[in-house]
Amino acid sequence: MARGRKKHRHFRRHGPPGSAPGSIHVAPDAKTPTISTFSFDNVRAVEQTVHRVGDLRGIMDKWPVTWINVDGLGDAAVLSELASLFHIHPLAMEDVVHTHQRPKVEQYNGQLFVVMRMFQCHERLETEQVSIFLGKNYVLTFQENLPGDSFEPVRERLRSHGPLTSQTSDYLAYRLLDAIIDGYFPVLETYGEQIDVLEDEVLECPQKQTLSRIHDIKKDLLEIRRAIWPAREAVNQLARDPILLISDNTRVFLRDCYDHTVQLIDLLETYRDLSSDLRDLYLSSAGNRLNEIMKVLTIISTVFIPLTFVAGVYGMNFNTGASPYNMPELNWRFGYVGFWVAMLVIFAAELGFFWRKGWIGASLRKRFSAAPKNPNP
Amino acid sequence: MARGRKKHRHFRRHGPPGSAPGSIHVAPDAKTPTISTFSFDNVRAVEQTVHRVGDLRGIMDKWPVTWINVDGLGDAAVLSELASLFHIHPLAMEDVVHTHQRPKVEQYNGQLFVVMRMFQCHERLETEQVSIFLGKNYVLTFQENLPGDSFEPVRERLRSHGPLTSQTSDYLAYRLLDAIIDGYFPVLETYGEQIDVLEDEVLECPQKQTLSRIHDIKKDLLEIRRAIWPAREAVNQLARDPILLISDNTRVFLRDCYDHTVQLIDLLETYRDLSSDLRDLYLSSAGNRLNEIMKVLTIISTVFIPLTFVAGVYGMNFNTGASPYNMPELNWRFGYVGFWVAMLVIFAAELGFFWRKGWIGASLRKRFSAAPKNPNP
Amino acid sequence: MARGRKKHRHFRRHGPPGSAPGSIHVAPDAKTPTISTFSFDNVRAVEQTVHRVGDLRGIMDKWPVTWINVDGLGDAAVLSELASLFHIHPLAMEDVVHTHQRPKVEQYNGQLFVVMRMFQCHERLETEQVSIFLGKNYVLTFQENLPGDSFEPVRERLRSHGPLTSQTSDYLAYRLLDAIIDGYFPVLETYGEQIDVLEDEVLECPQKQTLSRIHDIKKDLLEIRRAIWPAREAVNQLARDPILLISDNTRVFLRDCYDHTVQLIDLLETYRDLSSDLRDLYLSSAGNRLNEIMKVLTIISTVFIPLTFVAGVYGMNFNTGASPYNMPELNWRFGYVGFWVAMLVIFAAELGFFWRKGWIGASLRKRFSAAPKNPNP
Amino acid sequence: MARGRKKHRHFRRHGPPGSAPGSIHVAPDAKTPTISTFSFDNVRAVEQTVHRVGDLRGIMDKWPVTWINVDGLGDAAVLSELASLFHIHPLAMEDVVHTHQRPKVEQYNGQLFVVMRMFQCHERLETEQVSIFLGKNYVLTFQENLPGDSFEPVRERLRSHGPLTSQTSDYLAYRLLDAIIDGYFPVLETYGEQIDVLEDEVLECPQKQTLSRIHDIKKDLLEIRRAIWPAREAVNQLARDPILLISDNTRVFLRDCYDHTVQLIDLLETYRDLSSDLRDLYLSSAGNRLNEIMKVLTIISTVFIPLTFVAGVYGMNFNTGASPYNMPELNWRFGYVGFWVAMLVIFAAELGFFWRKGWIGASLRKRFSAAPKNPNP
Amino acid sequence: MARGRKKHRHFRRHGPPGSAPGSIHVAPDAKTPTISTFSFDNVRAVEQTVHRVGDLRGIMDKWPVTWINVDGLGDAAVLSELASLFHIHPLAMEDVVHTHQRPKVEQYNGQLFVVMRMFQCHERLETEQVSIFLGKNYVLTFQENLPGDSFEPVRERLRSHGPLTSQTSDYLAYRLLDAIIDGYFPVLETYGEQIDVLEDEVLECPQKQTLSRIHDIKKDLLEIRRAIWPAREAVNQLARDPILLISDNTRVFLRDCYDHTVQLIDLLETYRDLSSDLRDLYLSSAGNRLNEIMKVLTIISTVFIPLTFVAGVYGMNFNTGASPYNMPELNWRFGYVGFWVAMLVIFAAELGFFWRKGWIGASLRKRFSAAPKNPNP
Repeated sequence: MARGRKKHRHFRRHGPPGSAPGSIHVAPDAKTPTISTFSFDNVRAVEQTVHRVGDLRGIMDKWPVTWINVDGLGDAAVLSELASLFHIHPLAMEDVVHTHQRPKVEQYNGQLFVVMRMFQCHERLETEQVSIFLGKNYVLTFQENLPGDSFEPVRERLRSHGPLTSQTSDYLAYRLLDAIIDGYFPVLETYGEQIDVLEDEVLECPQKQTLSRIHDIKKDLLEIRRAIWPAREAVNQLARDPILLISDNTRVFLRDCYDHTVQLIDLLETYRDLSSDLRDLYLSSAGNRLNEIMKVLTIISTVFIPLTFVAGVYGMNFNTGASPYNMPELNWRFGYVGFWVAMLVIFAAELGFFWRKGWIGASLRKRFSAAPKNPNP
Repeated sequence: MARGRKKHRHFRRHGPPGSAPGSIHVAPDAKTPTISTFSFDNVRAVEQTVHRVGDLRGIMDKWPVTWINVDGLGDAAVLSELASLFHIHPLAMEDVVHTHQRPKVEQYNGQLFVVMRMFQCHERLETEQVSIFLGKNYVLTFQENLPGDSFEPVRERLRSHGPLTSQTSDYLAYRLLDAIIDGYFPVLETYGEQIDVLEDEVLECPQKQTLSRIHDIKKDLLEIRRAIWPAREAVNQLARDPILLISDNTRVFLRDCYDHTVQLIDLLETYRDLSSDLRDLYLSSAGNRLNEIMKVLTIISTVFIPLTFVAGVYGMNFNTGASPYNMPELNWRFGYVGFWVAMLVIFAAELGFFWRKGWIGASLRKRFSAAPKNPNP
Repeated sequence: MARGRKKHRHFRRHGPPGSAPGSIHVAPDAKTPTISTFSFDNVRAVEQTVHRVGDLRGIMDKWPVTWINVDGLGDAAVLSELASLFHIHPLAMEDVVHTHQRPKVEQYNGQLFVVMRMFQCHERLETEQVSIFLGKNYVLTFQENLPGDSFEPVRERLRSHGPLTSQTSDYLAYRLLDAIIDGYFPVLETYGEQIDVLEDEVLECPQKQTLSRIHDIKKDLLEIRRAIWPAREAVNQLARDPILLISDNTRVFLRDCYDHTVQLIDLLETYRDLSSDLRDLYLSSAGNRLNEIMKVLTIISTVFIPLTFVAGVYGMNFNTGASPYNMPELNWRFGYVGFWVAMLVIFAAELGFFWRKGWIGASLRKRFSAAPKNPNP
Repeated sequence: MARGRKKHRHFRRHGPPGSAPGSIHVAPDAKTPTISTFSFDNVRAVEQTVHRVGDLRGIMDKWPVTWINVDGLGDAAVLSELASLFHIHPLAMEDVVHTHQRPKVEQYNGQLFVVMRMFQCHERLETEQVSIFLGKNYVLTFQENLPGDSFEPVRERLRSHGPLTSQTSDYLAYRLLDAIIDGYFPVLETYGEQIDVLEDEVLECPQKQTLSRIHDIKKDLLEIRRAIWPAREAVNQLARDPILLISDNTRVFLRDCYDHTVQLIDLLETYRDLSSDLRDLYLSSAGNRLNEIMKVLTIISTVFIPLTFVAGVYGMNFNTGASPYNMPELNWRFGYVGFWVAMLVIFAAELGFFWRKGWIGASLRKRFSAAPKNPNP
Repeated sequence: MARGRKKHRHFRRHGPPGSAPGSIHVAPDAKTPTISTFSFDNVRAVEQTVHRVGDLRGIMDKWPVTWINVDGLGDAAVLSELASLFHIHPLAMEDVVHTHQRPKVEQYNGQLFVVMRMFQCHERLETEQVSIFLGKNYVLTFQENLPGDSFEPVRERLRSHGPLTSQTSDYLAYRLLDAIIDGYFPVLETYGEQIDVLEDEVLECPQKQTLSRIHDIKKDLLEIRRAIWPAREAVNQLARDPILLISDNTRVFLRDCYDHTVQLIDLLETYRDLSSDLRDLYLSSAGNRLNEIMKVLTIISTVFIPLTFVAGVYGMNFNTGASPYNMPELNWRFGYVGFWVAMLVIFAAELGFFWRKGWIGASLRKRFSAAPKNPNP
């Protein structure tokens, strides 16, 4: 199950244990960084792709707000240049490249550092870390390897409608955070739909793979949970803590964003509950099937075993000539007919027994007793 | 199972992820809004249906308290007009139309914004969001699509008995909140009754559908829970927080309303516990049935298998003529009679074995041992 | 199962949803009220039965402390008279008649209002609400329909030993509360004993009804729990909060009473744990029985099925005359004897197989291996 | 199961419900009290047995610190004398004789009252309440019926090494508390060992009694838990609360003692987790055994049932003379030999089917696939 | 299971219960101590092995920071000398030798005492206690018996790169703590990999040992949990509490270290969840196998039992000569052929029944219904 193994790797440290704190260890499979910027004042918004880190200073000086997005963490030199350009604390830079961080907010001398996770769910759940640095006139974001991201709607907005309502870096950072948080909803809904489908499957025709699919959903939800809970805490900190970089106007929006994280958690925990219930339901369903199988076996065995015994009795070779007590039935005129009559009597008695036990005729029985009961008013 | 799928939709965002905050996205299946008002002073109460939003200002200016109820969220223009008339904050308006909010209380410059959920349970659980805006001389409520609501008793009261005891907007808002909260009781009781009925069914004749019905109850209770817990928090905030719009007199009533939410949660959690117990009970019951089926199978197989073997033995064709050791029983005078005697002895021995195991004769056994035990004093 | 249905009714609202707050809705099945008083100064205590509410004022004026007990809530007029005589707040009066309240403490202008629940356990658990009003010189208690109550020991004390140690209304109220709380102990102990009995039954001879009895105990404990947890909170409030009506002397006793509620909760949660364990134990026991049944079936089937096959082989009618290869055994001198020898060999081999599997001879096996193991030192 | 019944009795109130608070109700089976004292100054320690309560004052006046131990609570007169000598509050005295208290700390006018529980585990868990009163120059301890106690090491220390390091009553009380807490470790370890033994048993040869032994361990741990958790709280209160009687020097040691209670809880919860896991493991093990039994039954039945059918076919009496289509096989030269060949072919096919299902040959199969897998690196 | 027994021993007290607090009881199997030091100023770092405790003072006086590592706790004399040299509080020293402590931080007159646990996982989980004393110019660490430790990366760093960035004892202590915490990651990842492997095993071919391996993983994770949770608390205390010995510069790093403990807990709890899920999955898998076994048994029994009965009927010896009603089929021309045709008809009917039940042909059935369903989009 290559899947499970891959997934766990996301949580592992890349640096060897005991390495000096604050060092930049580039993961061997990391993507080469691409740097793109969006700058805007209250009139227009400009998108640029930057090839040398040195060019950034020029852009940032010209505009009141610049968003620098770094896609890929595969070049230690570029990362170092960025770190020194933006005065990034070594421990923060370490967290950027060790992409196993829990979502969090930290402050390093006048810079706000936010870690979040983005999820995508094509075929299977994939996740990447997003690191956001918020300064006076810039927002710097780092992403991992995955193609595509949750920022696309913000880019679209900037491209088609020009500058945002508020031309401050904190509002821009809020928009990016909001885009990440909003990106969780479609991912979670995928699981909601899968749970619905599996529920039908469990109740109608449970299969062997159903179980491992439920297990996979539970594992994925567990992983999403590990990202959302600390994300809520982080957004809450941004909205409530006295942080200089964040204006009161933006705080109102961050509180709205916090509300969304609470809704997400609500939804997530509901899905987790439902998927646990589903596993129990599957087990109960399997138990029901076992019961039914056993019932069929028992009915057929119980019907035929006595009949077979009787047939066996009349297959015995007692010498009817040696004594009148030796199986005189064999020579009776209606012996064989009597045998079948006895068989039918036994058969009917057994059916009666099963009917009384409620093992057969359930559908017939139900039709008669449904009227007076009416259990689901 | 269209049901499950439908239900989840209530929790989904309508707007596409990343859309600008504060925008009004009308859901395609939303009902056209109908606006009705109740106004009253200390003498009389008047009910009116309003067709243009512009007419509202006139009504509100004439009366000390006006309740404006908007039923249906399907017209963005009407909603915008209302928003500008009542100075509703864009984020609050967004919450009104994205009807997936958790119950909450928020304050926007001198206006109180309360979100609640209403439930109805005909055939299956249905829910709609209610948004309440409380201003100095008005209460503005928005409802979704469902026909009927929990406000009917308040309307009846106003129609038949005239103005409320206290002619303030906060008391009116309390009455509406109280009506919503009181509306939960009959819904929960429906589940209480269903649990009682299912309990009997589980203990007496568990069926295959029982399980999925228990599962549905658990899912519904989970959904109600997601509405009641935050509702309790919201009512508590209204009763305890220093909110200018709410007078001390109304607070006493809100505390009573808070008590009701606590009772609801109590009841809800009890029902959730009971429905979980019910699932376990069902499983145990199914286990019991399996045990009983197996017992019947085992008894009948065990009784007849040895007998059949013996009958098989005397069906063998060893040549009695070739040797005196070859099945001389076949020629004995009482061979066949002896066979039946042996059968009866084996049969009796087996019955004795089952009796000792406690598999048969339980009812007989119980009658004898019941007297001295008396386990349920 | 009339029982379950009845029980839930205790938690239901009597008034229709949306009725005006503070109104008195008498339940149709409520008992006609009987009013009795106990009055005492530091010399003697006097018991009186009062037929008109108006007589109460005279009694209360004469004595420093009076306890008025109202048994039955079936007459709205009497209740209204009492409410106006004792200046009871409408919301409090509403709580008195809607006997589904959780235990709580509330203060209404110089009057303390305490709600508690009493339990009785004859045949099945019954509960009634007790409402206690504490004023400067009186304690007013309301009870529901049940015959008998937990106050009897206090009455006995007053009748036989005269006035209480302290002649204040708060001490009297403490004594009544303490009597209610103490009344929980024998009820809980009944369940402790039932659990002990069921434990034996589960381990020795689990029956079908055992399960539903465990279920009933769990349900009852759940109901008691809903009364005790808030009762603890209420008593704690009385003991710690700065309430003018309660003297420091009485507080010491209330703290003791609080300790009792903590013990009760301890006991209750232990019983709940034990009853959950018991259900698991029952399931395991049932699993064990199934295992045993299957073992018997397997042993007997496995022993006889091969034997029957062999007997079947020698019952075949191959023409021994047509070929020397056709079942020559049938004509051997010791064919039949050889058949039985083969049977015995197969039988022994199978027994050996079962012995090695550990399915038979467990008691023998244990005796040999018990000495060196000694697992329970 | 006398055991369960006995155990619960420990938690029951001795006094009848509703009896006056502060009264001394001696339990009928309580031991006659024996009073012994240890007194010491900074030079020597003296042990004395006291027969009259009156003698205590003389001893206490002579020494800076005296430890009075009362073993047995069976004489109300002696207890009353002690209560008046040491000015014990009636509610405290009531708690001493009603030996169902939870561990707690209370202060009554300049006297500290501590309740603890001691456990012993010979054959089965036994518990007794220890009540400790700490005054300026004395420590007074009350014990219940059990022979032996956790104080023995302290006595040994005093007998052999003379006075304690610090000759204050609070340090002495700490030593006694520490002795009680330390006494829990060997008791808990007994359960640790039992769990180890049972774990082996469950994995190797689960028996019917295993289950009830696990159940007993869980019950005992539940009972110990009810003593340790409040004990931790009590010791914490002693170490942190501003209590005049306890010096800062002793507080350092009490904090150490508190650490021990935290370790105990850690250990206890671990054992509880392990015993729950053990029950699950037992159930799984039982499930495995059922699977294995069913496999054997299925294999043997499935192998022989078709063979028996074929043998039955050739036991039919169709008249071979009446028609050439009637069982001509019976007259073939190699009919019987062919029958056996067919049997072997069917037999081999069935074995192949089971091999493919993985029901047989598991050990063989494993040996081949073990090399490449290496699942536990 | 020597393993379980060994593991529990780690949690046991070495000293007899009731022994005087602060005494040094050397465990009989403890390793003889080896003392090594690392000293450094801002220029170079020197490693030394010390044979006499007395030599330490000379080294410490020469260097600004010295790390003294004591490996082994087997010599009471050496420990006493160290205790008096470093002025270690007796209670702290007791905790050093009783190596069953929970991780914690304590302050004793100007000295910081930290207890941590180190884990190694070769073959099975092993743990040892590390005690760290932090003074002005030294860090003193004590380790237990295990060969190798988590400090090796720090030693390597000092040997190859010379003095640390900051030449203070608190920074050194942080580096050691960080090394311990980082050492948990590879240990936990081992379990992550084992869980992945077991997951495949459970879903593909569950074996009897799978269960006990899952159980072992759960037990190990429980043990690691007991170390990490209090470790988090301890590191948090170091990072947040106002401790004089720790500079603000080091606190920044300790907060980073705290973040790592939070990640560890996250990872640990995820693994614990996964291993619990795995056990449930195993049980479900086992249930599935039982279902499949029963299905095979039922199908084969049900197919052949009626056929065998019919064959038995025609093996009966009714005298065809005595009456025309006695089994005339036996003499029919196509009797035998008719018999086989009947057999085939019964056989086909039974297959049809099983197909309708969904017991056979699942793979065929799936291929047809797969297209429209598409459950995992």
